[in-house]
Amino acid sequence: MEGDAGRGLECQRTMDGRESNGNKTSNAVVIPSCCLKAMASQPELEAKCHSTVVSGWFSEPQSSSGEAHSLKVENILFKEKSKYQEVLVFQSAAYGKVLVLDGIVQLTEKDECAYQEMIAHLPLCSIKSPKNVLVVGGGDGGVLREISRHSSVELIDICEIDQMVIDVSRKFFPELAIGFDDPRVHLHVGDAIEFLRHAPEGKYDAVIVDSSDPVGPAQELVEKPFFDTIARALRPGGVLCNMAESWWLHTHLIQDMLSICHEVFKGSVRYAWTNVPTYPSGVIGFILCSTEGPPVDFVHPINPIEKLEDALIYRRELGVYNSEIHEAAFALPSFVKREVEALR
Amino acid sequence: MEGDAGRGLECQRTMDGRESNGNKTSNAVVIPSCCLKAMASQPELEAKCHSTVVSGWFSEPQSSSGEAHSLKVENILFKEKSKYQEVLVFQSAAYGKVLVLDGIVQLTEKDECAYQEMIAHLPLCSIKSPKNVLVVGGGDGGVLREISRHSSVELIDICEIDQMVIDVSRKFFPELAIGFDDPRVHLHVGDAIEFLRHAPEGKYDAVIVDSSDPVGPAQELVEKPFFDTIARALRPGGVLCNMAESWWLHTHLIQDMLSICHEVFKGSVRYAWTNVPTYPSGVIGFILCSTEGPPVDFVHPINPIEKLEDALIYRRELGVYNSEIHEAAFALPSFVKREVEALR
Repeated sequence: MEGDAGRGLECQRTMDGRESNGNKTSNAVVIPSCCLKAMASQPELEAKCHSTVVSGWFSEPQSSSGEAHSLKVENILFKEKSKYQEVLVFQSAAYGKVLVLDGIVQLTEKDECAYQEMIAHLPLCSIKSPKNVLVVGGGDGGVLREISRHSSVELIDICEIDQMVIDVSRKFFPELAIGFDDPRVHLHVGDAIEFLRHAPEGKYDAVIVDSSDPVGPAQELVEKPFFDTIARALRPGGVLCNMAESWWLHTHLIQDMLSICHEVFKGSVRYAWTNVPTYPSGVIGFILCSTEGPPVDFVHPINPIEKLEDALIYRRELGVYNSEIHEAAFALPSFVKREVEALR
Repeated sequence: MEGDAGRGLECQRTMDGRESNGNKTSNAVVIPSCCLKAMASQPELEAKCHSTVVSGWFSEPQSSSGEAHSLKVENILFKEKSKYQEVLVFQSAAYGKVLVLDGIVQLTEKDECAYQEMIAHLPLCSIKSPKNVLVVGGGDGGVLREISRHSSVELIDICEIDQMVIDVSRKFFPELAIGFDDPRVHLHVGDAIEFLRHAPEGKYDAVIVDSSDPVGPAQELVEKPFFDTIARALRPGGVLCNMAESWWLHTHLIQDMLSICHEVFKGSVRYAWTNVPTYPSGVIGFILCSTEGPPVDFVHPINPIEKLEDALIYRRELGVYNSEIHEAAFALPSFVKREVEALR
């Protein structure tokens, strides 16, 4: 854990390539003309190289096939098909190691702090003394690492469907997988819906859904029955934090999820967001809900991280999260407020 | 101006391609293997196609040559070298029309609202009844359009060095160039430093620097003499809002600019940011400064846009900005606070 205090700095410097030579336009452009020509003239080539690392570059289509974000690959570290999805790990030139599931960037070493911290602390800092927490997905361990900062927590259940994600994280992302080493963590490899069905009613103070995008194994995780089982497993006034896409790209999906949550959760339902450079549009959102019971004011953290004694466990500084960022995460663009009825 | 009320919606739907077919992974990947191979094996090709549109794709290197953001080009509308820079306009598949200067995306129709609104309203909503405003750069007219919402404003000077940017905007971006039609606008084509030197001392309530990145013609705009001339041209308690890059990528540049501003401006100096999907890392920052005089509290808008009578001039809804977004823009990630000394 040595040297973690300088993590933000290291992160910044690594990404600062175009400052260091004083002229950002002097860097080579990434996609040469022959490639672009091929893309335009041979659409069948596009189909063939879906979601793969090819000769030094990984490319993820963004909001539509009209946009892409590309990372230069220094080294492919792992690529295999699990029972559920394609798992890829590579060393990138700009963002450190990168984990990709089914062609979609899940995390990079350089900006993972933003996502992991927000999805964990938005819910846990919104209630007093959380004790029992369930993580759905999150097999990389990063969310567990963040939950560890809360000394009030006694039990952390995690239900991840894909053992390969856990193994790969332990091997290539020790800074995230360290989350599994907390003795409060109980790992369950399996289907989260099954797990939740057998969970005692009212067991959890908080449930955190750190799933991949709602396609493939995670498809069911945006449907009403799933939210029903979560609500059942939460205590009165318990909280859910669910990954919820970008308002630039997925307004309709967000609207649908919010409508379901308003039906299921009789406490508060709120939407928050943060910036993650390697996610599409640079934005990732979170839906926060509470069950009927003691009211929860998500916007003003009742359990501020700055007052937690063990928040800097393992001497690990927070990268992005703080109480100001927490409150700011709930400020939404005007067009989002107009479009997403459930936010009005 | 008809139909502007639905702009946010239209914007969102256009970018929502991968939702509409219910499966984001089904869209074609953008960069075929032949291309990626060529990139890896023939670095000289990279150098040749710097910052150009080639056979259907535009690509901008991001934080370093290890990362790129690419947009599919439906149609090149304009490409010419002005006296100062290369000006390119194309119709993109995902973001509407795009303006590019020297290979760097300046704005797209679909997300320009975020930048233009923030850079204009962050300063103008922070002071009571702004009357005289100067815009440096901003030749597309978008910032002028936003300033128009403030009925207290009597004079809007704009000093843009490149006539071609203005002409191109009038032709291809009428929704932005409409800003020039306001009778309060006085256009000066020329060097901003020269213009400021001849401006009467204390003339302006607000100066907004909407420059391109600090290379090429905008290089001088991050140096102390420039800030000195701005401070001189501002009234006591007048405000500056200056475009200031991304904290993910340019922490050192931000630190340098903040240090200079602390030296020059004896009122407040603050840093704010917003999310713009087509800018590197999805983040763009702003430095806000006030001169000695009546104190300015940038974080809590004293002149809230929700109370401005003409804020919806031309029936144009705000896309991103509102008073909550204003306050939230000042919340900074923990690592930025640690790294950027001047923010402590």
